[in-house]
Amino acid sequence: MKFATEYLEFNTQKKREYINITDEVELIVRKSGIQEGMVLVSAMHITAGVYVNDAESGLIEDIDAWLETLAPYRNDYRHHRTGETNGDAHLKSLIIHHEVIVPITNGRLDLGPWQQVYYAEFDGKRRKRLVIKVMGE
Amino acid sequence: MKFATEYLEFNTQKKREYINITDEVELIVRKSGIQEGMVLVSAMHITAGVYVNDAESGLIEDIDAWLETLAPYRNDYRHHRTGETNGDAHLKSLIIHHEVIVPITNGRLDLGPWQQVYYAEFDGKRRKRLVIKVMGE
Amino acid sequence: MKFATEYLEFNTQKKREYINITDEVELIVRKSGIQEGMVLVSAMHITAGVYVNDAESGLIEDIDAWLETLAPYRNDYRHHRTGETNGDAHLKSLIIHHEVIVPITNGRLDLGPWQQVYYAEFDGKRRKRLVIKVMGE
Repeated sequence: MKFATEYLEFNTQKKREYINITDEVELIVRKSGIQEGMVLVSAMHITAGVYVNDAESGLIEDIDAWLETLAPYRNDYRHHRTGETNGDAHLKSLIIHHEVIVPITNGRLDLGPWQQVYYAEFDGKRRKRLVIKVMGE
Repeated sequence: MKFATEYLEFNTQKKREYINITDEVELIVRKSGIQEGMVLVSAMHITAGVYVNDAESGLIEDIDAWLETLAPYRNDYRHHRTGETNGDAHLKSLIIHHEVIVPITNGRLDLGPWQQVYYAEFDGKRRKRLVIKVMGE
Repeated sequence: MKFATEYLEFNTQKKREYINITDEVELIVRKSGIQEGMVLVSAMHITAGVYVNDAESGLIEDIDAWLETLAPYRNDYRHHRTGETNGDAHLKSLIIHHEVIVPITNGRLDLGPWQQVYYAEFDGKRRKRLVIKVMGE
Protein backbone atom coordinates (compact mmCIF):
# COMPACT_ATOMS: atom_id res chain seq x y z
CA MET A 1 0.00 0.00 0.00
CA LYS A 2 1.29 3.44 -0.93
CA PHE A 3 0.60 6.91 0.37
CA ALA A 4 1.55 10.36 -0.81
CA THR A 5 0.90 13.58 1.09
CA GLU A 6 1.43 17.04 -0.29
CA TYR A 7 0.33 20.52 0.71
CA LEU A 8 -0.61 23.41 -1.54
CA GLU A 9 -0.40 27.02 -0.42
CA PHE A 10 -2.61 29.90 -1.48
CA ASN A 11 -2.49 33.61 -0.83
CA THR A 12 -5.21 35.09 -3.02
CA GLN A 13 -5.32 38.67 -4.17
CA LYS A 14 -9.07 38.91 -3.66
CA LYS A 15 -11.12 38.06 -0.61
CA ARG A 16 -13.03 35.44 -2.60
CA GLU A 17 -11.45 33.39 -5.35
CA TYR A 18 -12.07 30.08 -7.11
CA ILE A 19 -8.91 28.32 -8.27
CA ASN A 20 -8.82 25.27 -10.54
CA ILE A 21 -6.36 22.82 -8.95
CA THR A 22 -7.14 19.77 -11.09
CA ASP A 23 -3.72 19.72 -12.76
CA GLU A 24 -1.89 19.95 -9.42
CA VAL A 25 -3.93 17.08 -8.00
CA GLU A 26 -3.40 14.98 -11.13
CA LEU A 27 0.35 15.62 -11.01
CA ILE A 28 0.59 14.54 -7.37
CA VAL A 29 -1.32 11.36 -8.19
CA ARG A 30 1.03 10.57 -11.10
CA LYS A 31 4.13 11.25 -9.01
CA SER A 32 2.82 8.86 -6.34
CA GLY A 33 2.78 5.99 -8.83
CA ILE A 34 -0.56 4.87 -7.37
CA GLN A 35 -2.66 3.14 -10.01
CA GLU A 36 -5.77 2.27 -7.99
CA GLY A 37 -7.07 4.17 -4.99
CA MET A 38 -8.48 7.47 -3.85
CA VAL A 39 -7.19 10.99 -3.39
CA LEU A 40 -8.51 13.26 -0.67
CA VAL A 41 -8.30 17.01 -1.35
CA SER A 42 -9.06 18.95 1.80
CA ALA A 43 -8.84 22.62 2.76
CA MET A 44 -7.06 23.10 6.10
CA HIS A 45 -8.99 26.24 6.96
CA ILE A 46 -12.50 26.92 8.15
CA THR A 47 -13.17 29.74 5.71
CA ALA A 48 -12.28 27.88 2.50
CA GLY A 49 -13.65 24.91 0.61
CA VAL A 50 -12.99 22.37 -2.11
CA TYR A 51 -15.56 21.30 -4.68
CA VAL A 52 -15.87 19.61 -8.05
CA ASN A 53 -17.70 21.38 -10.85
CA ASP A 54 -17.31 23.10 -14.21
CA ALA A 55 -14.39 25.31 -15.32
CA GLU A 56 -16.69 27.94 -16.83
CA SER A 57 -16.17 31.55 -15.83
CA GLY A 58 -19.84 32.55 -16.02
CA LEU A 59 -20.80 29.67 -13.76
CA ILE A 60 -18.10 30.63 -11.27
CA GLU A 61 -19.58 34.14 -11.11
CA ASP A 62 -23.00 32.56 -10.58
CA ILE A 63 -21.66 30.39 -7.76
CA ASP A 64 -20.07 33.39 -6.08
CA ALA A 65 -23.23 35.54 -6.31
CA TRP A 66 -25.40 32.63 -5.18
CA LEU A 67 -23.25 31.89 -2.12
CA GLU A 68 -23.56 35.56 -1.19
CA THR A 69 -27.37 35.28 -1.24
CA LEU A 70 -27.38 32.07 0.87
CA ALA A 71 -24.66 33.14 3.31
CA PRO A 72 -24.40 36.92 3.04
CA TYR A 73 -21.80 39.20 4.52
CA ARG A 74 -23.35 40.76 7.62
CA ASN A 75 -22.03 42.80 10.48
CA ASP A 76 -24.07 41.14 13.16
CA TYR A 77 -22.89 37.56 13.20
CA ARG A 78 -22.31 36.43 16.78
CA HIS A 79 -18.91 35.15 15.66
CA HIS A 80 -17.87 38.79 15.22
CA ARG A 81 -17.87 39.29 19.00
CA THR A 82 -14.45 37.61 18.81
CA GLY A 83 -13.17 40.48 16.67
CA GLU A 84 -13.45 38.49 13.44
CA THR A 85 -15.50 39.83 10.52
CA ASN A 86 -15.66 36.64 8.46
CA GLY A 87 -18.81 34.92 9.69
CA ASP A 88 -20.11 34.71 6.14
CA ALA A 89 -16.93 32.91 5.02
CA HIS A 90 -17.52 30.14 7.58
CA LEU A 91 -21.09 29.66 6.35
CA LYS A 92 -20.07 29.72 2.69
CA SER A 93 -17.47 27.03 3.41
CA LEU A 94 -20.13 24.89 5.12
CA ILE A 95 -22.31 24.94 1.99
CA ILE A 96 -19.45 24.16 -0.39
CA HIS A 97 -17.67 21.81 2.02
CA HIS A 98 -14.02 21.60 2.80
CA GLU A 99 -13.08 18.36 1.06
CA VAL A 100 -13.67 16.04 -1.86
CA ILE A 101 -12.44 12.54 -2.53
CA VAL A 102 -11.70 11.50 -6.10
CA PRO A 103 -11.25 7.90 -7.31
CA ILE A 104 -8.02 6.92 -9.06
CA THR A 105 -8.30 4.34 -11.84
CA ASN A 106 -5.37 3.27 -14.02
CA GLY A 107 -3.24 5.99 -12.46
CA ARG A 108 -5.61 8.81 -13.42
CA LEU A 109 -8.26 10.88 -11.65
CA ASP A 110 -11.48 9.07 -12.54
CA LEU A 111 -13.49 12.24 -13.19
CA GLY A 112 -16.23 12.86 -15.73
CA PRO A 113 -15.44 14.97 -18.81
CA TRP A 114 -16.47 18.29 -17.25
CA GLN A 115 -15.47 17.69 -13.65
CA GLN A 116 -12.70 19.91 -12.32
CA VAL A 117 -11.42 20.24 -8.75
CA TYR A 118 -11.64 23.76 -7.33
CA TYR A 119 -10.22 25.45 -4.27
CA ALA A 120 -12.73 28.04 -3.05
CA GLU A 121 -11.33 30.87 -0.97
CA PHE A 122 -13.85 32.86 1.09
CA ASP A 123 -11.50 34.88 3.32
CA GLY A 124 -8.35 35.40 1.31
CA LYS A 125 -5.47 37.82 1.10
CA ARG A 126 -3.62 35.66 3.58
CA ARG A 127 -1.71 32.40 3.58
CA LYS A 128 -3.89 29.29 3.45
CA ARG A 129 -3.07 25.61 3.07
CA LEU A 130 -4.67 22.55 1.57
CA VAL A 131 -3.72 18.88 2.04
CA ILE A 132 -3.75 16.27 -0.72
CA LYS A 133 -3.54 12.66 0.46
CA VAL A 134 -3.24 9.84 -2.07
CA MET A 135 -3.89 6.29 -0.87
CA GLY A 136 -3.86 3.06 -2.87
CA GLU A 137 -1.42 0.86 -4.73
CA MET B 1 -5.51 -4.87 -0.82
CA LYS B 2 -8.45 -5.14 -3.18
CA PHE B 3 -10.23 -2.69 -5.45
CA ALA B 4 -13.39 -2.85 -7.48
CA THR B 5 -14.56 -0.18 -9.90
CA GLU B 6 -17.93 -0.13 -11.59
CA TYR B 7 -19.97 2.46 -13.43
CA LEU B 8 -23.73 2.96 -13.41
CA GLU B 9 -25.59 4.68 -16.22
CA PHE B 10 -28.72 6.78 -15.97
CA ASN B 11 -30.98 8.34 -18.54
CA THR B 12 -33.92 9.71 -16.60
CA GLN B 13 -37.34 10.41 -18.04
CA LYS B 14 -37.72 13.60 -16.05
CA LYS B 15 -35.37 16.53 -15.76
CA ARG B 16 -35.07 15.97 -12.02
CA GLU B 17 -35.18 12.54 -10.46
CA TYR B 18 -34.02 10.89 -7.24
CA ILE B 19 -33.05 7.23 -7.63
CA ASN B 20 -32.32 4.84 -4.77
CA ILE B 21 -29.10 3.01 -5.69
CA THR B 22 -28.40 1.34 -2.33
CA ASP B 23 -28.98 -2.19 -3.65
CA GLU B 24 -26.66 -1.66 -6.62
CA VAL B 25 -23.90 -0.32 -4.35
CA GLU B 26 -24.39 -3.18 -1.89
CA LEU B 27 -24.21 -5.73 -4.71
CA ILE B 28 -20.96 -4.28 -6.05
CA VAL B 29 -19.47 -4.40 -2.55
CA ARG B 30 -20.50 -8.05 -2.14
CA LYS B 31 -19.13 -9.02 -5.55
CA SER B 32 -15.80 -7.37 -4.63
CA GLY B 33 -15.36 -9.74 -1.69
CA ILE B 34 -14.08 -6.81 0.36
CA GLN B 35 -14.90 -7.28 4.05
CA GLU B 36 -13.38 -4.10 5.52
CA GLY B 37 -12.94 -0.79 3.74
CA MET B 38 -14.80 2.04 2.11
CA VAL B 39 -16.88 2.55 -1.00
CA LEU B 40 -16.93 5.85 -2.85
CA VAL B 41 -20.08 6.63 -4.85
CA SER B 42 -19.51 9.64 -7.08
CA ALA B 43 -21.52 11.28 -9.85
CA MET B 44 -19.37 11.92 -12.93
CA HIS B 45 -21.37 14.99 -13.98
CA ILE B 46 -21.61 18.53 -12.72
CA THR B 47 -25.40 18.67 -12.74
CA ALA B 48 -26.04 15.58 -10.62
CA GLY B 49 -25.33 14.53 -7.05
CA VAL B 50 -25.19 11.65 -4.62
CA TYR B 51 -26.52 11.80 -1.07
CA VAL B 52 -27.57 9.57 1.80
CA ASN B 53 -31.00 10.02 3.33
CA ASP B 54 -34.44 8.50 3.74
CA ALA B 55 -36.36 6.44 1.15
CA GLU B 56 -39.63 8.25 1.84
CA SER B 57 -41.54 9.66 -1.12
CA GLY B 58 -42.93 12.70 0.73
CA LEU B 59 -39.46 13.66 1.89
CA ILE B 60 -38.11 13.33 -1.63
CA GLU B 61 -40.78 15.76 -2.83
CA ASP B 62 -39.78 18.09 0.02
CA ILE B 63 -36.12 17.88 -0.98
CA ASP B 64 -36.95 18.65 -4.60
CA ALA B 65 -39.14 21.67 -3.74
CA TRP B 66 -36.60 22.93 -1.20
CA LEU B 67 -33.70 22.73 -3.66
CA GLU B 68 -35.80 24.75 -6.09
CA THR B 69 -36.20 27.51 -3.48
CA LEU B 70 -32.46 27.57 -2.63
CA ALA B 71 -31.19 27.24 -6.22
CA PRO B 72 -34.09 28.20 -8.47
CA TYR B 73 -34.37 27.85 -12.20
CA ARG B 74 -33.69 31.28 -13.68
CA ASN B 75 -33.08 32.59 -17.17
CA ASP B 76 -30.39 35.04 -16.23
CA TYR B 77 -27.56 32.91 -14.89
CA ARG B 78 -24.26 34.06 -16.39
CA HIS B 79 -23.57 30.42 -17.23
CA HIS B 80 -26.35 30.64 -19.81
CA ARG B 81 -24.22 32.91 -21.99
CA THR B 82 -22.58 29.63 -23.08
CA GLY B 83 -25.92 28.50 -24.53
CA GLU B 84 -26.66 26.23 -21.57
CA THR B 85 -29.90 26.63 -19.59
CA ASN B 86 -28.96 24.51 -16.59
CA GLY B 87 -27.34 26.96 -14.19
CA ASP B 88 -29.77 25.91 -11.46
CA ALA B 89 -28.73 22.26 -11.87
CA HIS B 90 -25.09 23.14 -11.14
CA LEU B 91 -26.08 25.00 -7.97
CA LYS B 92 -28.42 22.22 -6.83
CA SER B 93 -25.59 19.72 -7.26
CA LEU B 94 -23.28 21.92 -5.17
CA ILE B 95 -25.74 21.86 -2.24
CA ILE B 96 -26.32 18.11 -2.42
CA HIS B 97 -22.72 17.28 -3.39
CA HIS B 98 -21.52 14.86 -5.96
CA GLU B 99 -20.17 12.05 -3.79
CA VAL B 100 -20.51 10.07 -0.60
CA ILE B 101 -18.22 7.54 1.01
CA VAL B 102 -19.73 4.65 2.93
CA PRO B 103 -17.85 2.40 5.36
CA ILE B 104 -17.80 -1.37 4.76
CA THR B 105 -17.81 -3.60 7.85
CA ASN B 106 -18.06 -7.40 7.69
CA GLY B 107 -18.69 -7.20 3.95
CA ARG B 108 -21.75 -4.96 4.28
CA LEU B 109 -22.47 -1.24 3.88
CA ASP B 110 -22.21 0.07 7.45
CA LEU B 111 -25.26 2.33 7.17
CA GLY B 112 -27.81 3.23 9.82
CA PRO B 113 -31.29 1.67 9.62
CA TRP B 114 -32.83 4.48 7.54
CA GLN B 115 -29.84 5.50 5.46
CA GLN B 116 -30.16 4.92 1.74
CA VAL B 117 -27.83 6.02 -1.06
CA TYR B 118 -29.48 8.22 -3.70
CA TYR B 119 -28.47 9.42 -7.13
CA ALA B 120 -29.93 12.91 -7.66
CA GLU B 121 -30.38 13.98 -11.26
CA PHE B 122 -30.85 17.73 -11.83
CA ASP B 123 -30.48 17.88 -15.63
CA GLY B 124 -31.72 14.60 -16.94
CA LYS B 125 -33.22 13.13 -20.09
CA ARG B 126 -29.70 12.35 -21.23
CA ARG B 127 -27.05 9.75 -20.53
CA LYS B 128 -25.19 10.25 -17.28
CA ARG B 129 -22.63 8.13 -15.44
CA LEU B 130 -21.63 7.44 -11.88
CA VAL B 131 -18.51 5.69 -10.56
CA ILE B 132 -18.42 3.29 -7.64
CA LYS B 133 -14.99 2.50 -6.23
CA VAL B 134 -14.56 -0.10 -3.50
CA MET B 135 -11.27 -0.19 -1.59
CA GLY B 136 -10.25 -2.46 1.27
CA GLU B 137 -9.49 -6.07 1.96
CA MET C 1 -3.33 -2.80 5.99
CA LYS C 2 -5.17 -2.02 9.19
CA PHE C 3 -8.72 -1.05 10.00
CA ALA C 4 -10.43 0.15 13.13
CA THR C 5 -14.18 0.63 13.51
CA GLU C 6 -15.85 2.27 16.47
CA TYR C 7 -19.26 3.70 17.17
CA LEU C 8 -20.17 6.72 19.27
CA GLU C 9 -23.59 7.18 20.82
CA PHE C 10 -25.41 10.41 21.47
CA ASN C 11 -28.60 11.25 23.29
CA THR C 12 -28.74 15.02 23.39
CA GLN C 13 -30.73 17.04 25.89
CA LYS C 14 -31.79 19.56 23.26
CA LYS C 15 -33.39 18.98 19.89
CA ARG C 16 -30.45 20.62 18.14
CA GLU C 17 -26.91 20.38 19.45
CA TYR C 18 -23.38 20.69 18.08
CA ILE C 19 -20.83 18.45 19.80
CA ASN C 20 -17.07 18.66 19.30
CA ILE C 21 -15.86 15.07 18.79
CA THR C 22 -12.29 15.83 17.65
CA ASP C 23 -10.69 14.30 20.74
CA GLU C 24 -12.72 11.09 20.44
CA VAL C 25 -11.77 10.74 16.76
CA GLU C 26 -8.10 11.44 17.53
CA LEU C 27 -8.11 8.86 20.33
CA ILE C 28 -9.57 6.18 18.07
CA VAL C 29 -6.93 6.94 15.44
CA ARG C 30 -4.14 6.66 18.03
CA LYS C 31 -5.50 3.40 19.44
CA SER C 32 -5.59 1.96 15.90
CA GLY C 33 -1.84 2.45 15.53
CA ILE C 34 -2.42 3.63 11.97
CA GLN C 35 0.26 6.12 10.93
CA GLU C 36 -0.85 6.89 7.37
CA GLY C 37 -4.38 6.74 6.03
CA MET C 38 -7.82 8.24 6.36
CA VAL C 39 -10.58 8.26 8.93
CA LEU C 40 -14.24 8.44 7.95
CA VAL C 41 -16.60 9.97 10.50
CA SER C 42 -20.20 9.37 9.49
CA ALA C 43 -23.53 9.92 11.18
CA MET C 44 -25.75 6.83 10.96
CA HIS C 45 -28.99 8.83 11.00
CA ILE C 46 -30.76 10.95 8.43
CA THR C 47 -31.45 13.85 10.77
CA ALA C 48 -27.87 14.43 11.93
CA GLY C 49 -24.62 15.49 10.32
CA VAL C 50 -20.87 15.72 10.69
CA TYR C 51 -18.82 18.75 9.68
CA VAL C 52 -15.42 20.36 10.21
CA ASN C 53 -15.26 23.96 11.38
CA ASP C 54 -14.39 26.25 14.27
CA ALA C 55 -14.90 25.54 17.99
CA GLU C 56 -16.25 29.06 18.68
CA SER C 57 -19.54 29.34 20.54
CA GLY C 58 -20.74 32.48 18.71
CA LEU C 59 -20.15 30.83 15.36
CA ILE C 60 -22.04 27.73 16.45
CA GLU C 61 -25.03 29.94 17.34
CA ASP C 62 -24.68 31.58 13.91
CA ILE C 63 -24.64 28.19 12.20
CA ASP C 64 -27.74 27.08 14.08
CA ALA C 65 -29.69 30.27 13.27
CA TRP C 66 -28.55 30.19 9.65
CA LEU C 67 -29.61 26.57 9.14
CA GLU C 68 -33.03 27.52 10.51
CA THR C 69 -33.36 30.22 7.83
CA LEU C 70 -32.27 27.88 5.01
CA ALA C 71 -34.22 24.83 6.19
CA PRO C 72 -36.86 26.12 8.59
CA TYR C 73 -39.12 24.14 10.84
CA ARG C 74 -42.51 23.99 9.12
CA ASN C 75 -45.71 22.08 9.73
CA ASP C 76 -46.46 21.40 6.10
CA TYR C 77 -43.59 19.26 4.88
CA ARG C 78 -44.93 16.35 2.85
CA HIS C 79 -42.74 14.08 4.96
CA HIS C 80 -45.05 14.83 7.91
CA ARG C 81 -47.83 12.82 6.30
CA THR C 82 -45.92 9.82 7.72
CA GLY C 83 -46.56 11.14 11.23
CA GLU C 84 -43.03 12.56 11.57
CA THR C 85 -42.50 16.25 12.41
CA ASN C 86 -38.79 16.45 11.55
CA GLY C 87 -38.75 17.43 7.88
CA ASP C 88 -36.52 20.39 8.67
CA ALA C 89 -33.96 18.11 10.36
CA HIS C 90 -33.59 16.08 7.15
CA LEU C 91 -32.97 19.22 5.11
CA LYS C 92 -30.53 20.65 7.66
CA SER C 93 -28.57 17.39 7.54
CA LEU C 94 -28.45 17.58 3.74
CA ILE C 95 -26.81 21.03 3.88
CA ILE C 96 -24.29 20.07 6.55
CA HIS C 97 -23.79 16.51 5.21
CA HIS C 98 -23.57 13.34 7.14
CA GLU C 99 -19.87 12.54 6.85
CA VAL C 100 -16.34 13.86 6.64
CA ILE C 101 -13.08 12.13 5.85
CA VAL C 102 -9.91 13.32 7.55
CA PRO C 103 -6.36 12.46 6.47
CA ILE C 104 -4.00 10.78 8.95
CA THR C 105 -0.32 11.72 8.73
CA ASN C 106 2.30 10.48 11.19
CA GLY C 107 -0.43 8.97 13.34
CA ARG C 108 -2.29 12.25 13.81
CA LEU C 109 -5.38 13.86 12.30
CA ASP C 110 -3.94 16.10 9.56
CA LEU C 111 -6.22 19.06 10.31
CA GLY C 112 -5.48 22.77 10.09
CA PRO C 113 -5.01 24.74 13.32
CA TRP C 114 -8.68 25.73 13.69
CA GLN C 115 -10.36 22.69 12.23
CA GLN C 116 -12.47 20.66 14.64
CA VAL C 117 -14.80 17.74 13.90
CA TYR C 118 -18.40 18.29 14.97
CA TYR C 119 -21.41 16.05 15.33
CA ALA C 120 -24.52 18.07 14.48
CA GLU C 121 -27.77 16.81 15.96
CA PHE C 122 -30.96 18.14 14.35
CA ASP C 123 -33.53 15.83 15.92
CA GLY C 124 -32.18 14.89 19.30
CA LYS C 125 -33.45 13.77 22.67
CA ARG C 126 -33.13 10.20 21.46
CA ARG C 127 -30.39 7.66 20.94
CA LYS C 128 -28.29 8.23 17.84
CA ARG C 129 -25.14 6.57 16.52
CA LEU C 130 -22.10 7.55 14.51
CA VAL C 131 -19.49 5.31 12.88
CA ILE C 132 -15.77 6.02 12.80
CA LYS C 133 -13.75 3.92 10.36
CA VAL C 134 -9.97 4.21 10.27
CA MET C 135 -8.13 2.74 7.28
CA GLY C 136 -4.41 2.77 6.52
CA GLU C 137 -1.20 1.30 7.85
